[in-house]
Amino acid sequence: MAFDLNSLKYNEAGLIPAIVQDAASGTVLMMAYMNRESLAKTLETGETWFWSRSRKTFWHKGETSGNVQKVKEVFYDCDRDTLLVKVEQDGAACHEGYYSCFHYRLEQDGGVTVIGERYFDPDQVYGKKS
Amino acid sequence: MAFDLNSLKYNEAGLIPAIVQDAASGTVLMMAYMNRESLAKTLETGETWFWSRSRKTFWHKGETSGNVQKVKEVFYDCDRDTLLVKVEQDGAACHEGYYSCFHYRLEQDGGVTVIGERYFDPDQVYGKKS
Repeated sequence: MAFDLNSLKYNEAGLIPAIVQDAASGTVLMMAYMNRESLAKTLETGETWFWSRSRKTFWHKGETSGNVQKVKEVFYDCDRDTLLVKVEQDGAACHEGYYSCFHYRLEQDGGVTVIGERYFDPDQVYGKKS
Repeated sequence: MAFDLNSLKYNEAGLIPAIVQDAASGTVLMMAYMNRESLAKTLETGETWFWSRSRKTFWHKGETSGNVQKVKEVFYDCDRDTLLVKVEQDGAACHEGYYSCFHYRLEQDGGVTVIGERYFDPDQVYGKKS
């Protein structure tokens, strides 16, 4: 019997958070939101599709930057309200040019350290914002 | 200058999703929600504190089960609306007895496979629900 995507728990906006993890290294790359349709597209195409809450449209990760995510495994959690998507990341995941979106580390002394190096210059990939 | 926890983006309910990852193995253990106060408690105590949306109360992970999470590193993402907490997990993270809450894998054929072994019997830890 096929898994019913309706059996997952979506929030009041019809969305479910999807954690994206590098399948090989285990690095957590980003978190974004899927609706039932973008999850179906993700499973069908083997690349990640999200729902952009700000633009209110489907968002095929890597469409602009070329940094697509090839899906290796998809998990849901015990509460059925969160997804974990293990991927092979082309290039870098973060729109700021870092491999992971989680590059700001809170330090014990209350400071913040930026971890990791930039893979690309966002201005060159997305165009400079004036 | 100390990092201002108010500078993170909390949702309309005052919550921010926190991904919890095993610091050593990279396994993603769970996702839960923090508010500003539970994040402050997490940073102060070095163990994870969440906000339970169902019980509307602070939730010190491991308080009932003993399976506490010792915080190693805390990151926030480029959008400032998601946290990544790297921990040392005592016992197992999932209330179903598995190490990770993400133990249901969606298969290409539409089926679901349970990944991982049970670390404990939930009935013995939390008491049997009638």
